[in-house]
Amino acid sequence: MTGRASPGAFGAFVAEWALPVEEALRDLLPPLHEAPTRLHEAMHYALFPGGKRLRPMLALLACKAVGGEVRPTLRAAAAIECLHTYSLVHDDLPCMDDDDLRRGRPTCHKVFGEALALLAGDALLTVAFEGVAAAGAAAVIALAKGAGSLGMVGGQVEDLAAEGDATQHTLPRVQWIHDHKTGALITASLLVGAHAAAGPAGAPFSVVEPLVRYGDLLGRAFQIADDCLDLTGTAAELGKNPLADVALGKLTWPALVGLQRSLAAARQMAAEAAALAPVVVAAAAAIRPAARSTLDGAVALLQDVATYAVERRR
Amino acid sequence: MTGRASPGAFGAFVAEWALPVEEALRDLLPPLHEAPTRLHEAMHYALFPGGKRLRPMLALLACKAVGGEVRPTLRAAAAIECLHTYSLVHDDLPCMDDDDLRRGRPTCHKVFGEALALLAGDALLTVAFEGVAAAGAAAVIALAKGAGSLGMVGGQVEDLAAEGDATQHTLPRVQWIHDHKTGALITASLLVGAHAAAGPAGAPFSVVEPLVRYGDLLGRAFQIADDCLDLTGTAAELGKNPLADVALGKLTWPALVGLQRSLAAARQMAAEAAALAPVVVAAAAAIRPAARSTLDGAVALLQDVATYAVERRR
Repeated sequence: MTGRASPGAFGAFVAEWALPVEEALRDLLPPLHEAPTRLHEAMHYALFPGGKRLRPMLALLACKAVGGEVRPTLRAAAAIECLHTYSLVHDDLPCMDDDDLRRGRPTCHKVFGEALALLAGDALLTVAFEGVAAAGAAAVIALAKGAGSLGMVGGQVEDLAAEGDATQHTLPRVQWIHDHKTGALITASLLVGAHAAAGPAGAPFSVVEPLVRYGDLLGRAFQIADDCLDLTGTAAELGKNPLADVALGKLTWPALVGLQRSLAAARQMAAEAAALAPVVVAAAAAIRPAARSTLDGAVALLQDVATYAVERRR
Repeated sequence: MTGRASPGAFGAFVAEWALPVEEALRDLLPPLHEAPTRLHEAMHYALFPGGKRLRPMLALLACKAVGGEVRPTLRAAAAIECLHTYSLVHDDLPCMDDDDLRRGRPTCHKVFGEALALLAGDALLTVAFEGVAAAGAAAVIALAKGAGSLGMVGGQVEDLAAEGDATQHTLPRVQWIHDHKTGALITASLLVGAHAAAGPAGAPFSVVEPLVRYGDLLGRAFQIADDCLDLTGTAAELGKNPLADVALGKLTWPALVGLQRSLAAARQMAAEAAALAPVVVAAAAAIRPAARSTLDGAVALLQDVATYAVERRR
């Protein structure tokens, strides 16, 4: 790893922006008392209290890393959390993973019924694009591509198809599914932040290219760590049923190569992502010169989040 | 009605732009052979062959009516059809209307299964925003508001809630549901076209305001006519099961006031919409002066589509 991340740089960033992200989420959603109230209750139920808000944080972090102002990007960052949450609500539906526990509580359809959960997911996906519009057309397109049939939804489809089909249980296959199901939205979150920072024309290719490489590695490390946590974590730590992947016959890294080799691979990918941090920041600095201290801080942040992706407990 | 619409102005417009809309739809969707192929097959199955493509036509027509170029708006117009189609796919799911016939064929989930139909709908909604991004942030926001929890999805929720609940069977209630479930996306289609024509800043309030009033009336007329067709049309004409609304205990105008009074109300609303056509065009012309002949043509188009909304056979 080139350069040590300052310990806790990402933790401090999260502490600074956690509340503003929650406020931006509440601003983006219609209030609970607005009709149809039952629909808005279901949307709020799925969103609050939230999880790690990782994807909004990644958007804000990328915005800062490429020299942008964080505050004006809050709405677009919150929008990504709405999109992520819709994917969880739909994923939990009976016709999909049929899960009854999410973020430590009954899943949305368990509380509101299938039809309302389906529609709440649809509305969360829709409001996500209302929120990201402020970040410009490039951000809208990056989010749609990351979330669509060639990104996240494509990954969900192949994940379902691979369940219990032993012929598909190979490392290239699991990697393809991870890259699409999880990685595409993580990379898109970073791109939304970078495009928001860059203004109407969006970030140039010289910045997008290393950021996509960084995001793809971060996403892989994150998902492998997630699959390992599914095996080692408790329901209280995870807020969802552990061993859920095993029960569904899901295709995961640990199922293929074991826990220790999976964790080693995740750490290797996180280290590779961290090594790209100075490249991303230098590319941005070439366009928008900034103070040396700002650049160092940005590099440390991008490196620290890579470490966080594999060392977290939930 | 102020001024007679030239007969068939909308028909001629549709004939001119039907093929380009189909081409734009194919351009917007990933090709069938792209992975995951089964997902893309489901998306194509839901979209082709299509229905009337009314919403893209409305977007193109509004673009033209406010003095814009039609061709650059084709992608955004096609995007609206993707969004409309997602709503049909999700509406037909077992946990919603549980319908087995759509556009004259088995519904998407009957052919591809529930999970894939759900995800194909999600992907169609997502790609809609990828497509509309080219028309600018104002168009993205208009589409998201029209399609979201305060628009179309909100209407779907209340429509489900009203099924079989006799206490809700009042004219104000059915109008609220229509305005949201159908009207919001029809008005949004017009707004997308107007915003696309106006460039990055979007169309000004002076144009948006009369266009929204026109769209809301058009949407009401269209939906009442739809409910009447459900009673009088055949499966072959409609491409879906007639009397489906009756079977579901849906709240409709004809169920409340009968067929003849419903048709009269629809015609009255269409006439009011048509009366607004010169107001819309004059507002646009005040900003972007155009030749007298162009303006007359635009007024006739907006008037003719209002007539079409109530006089069509499917």
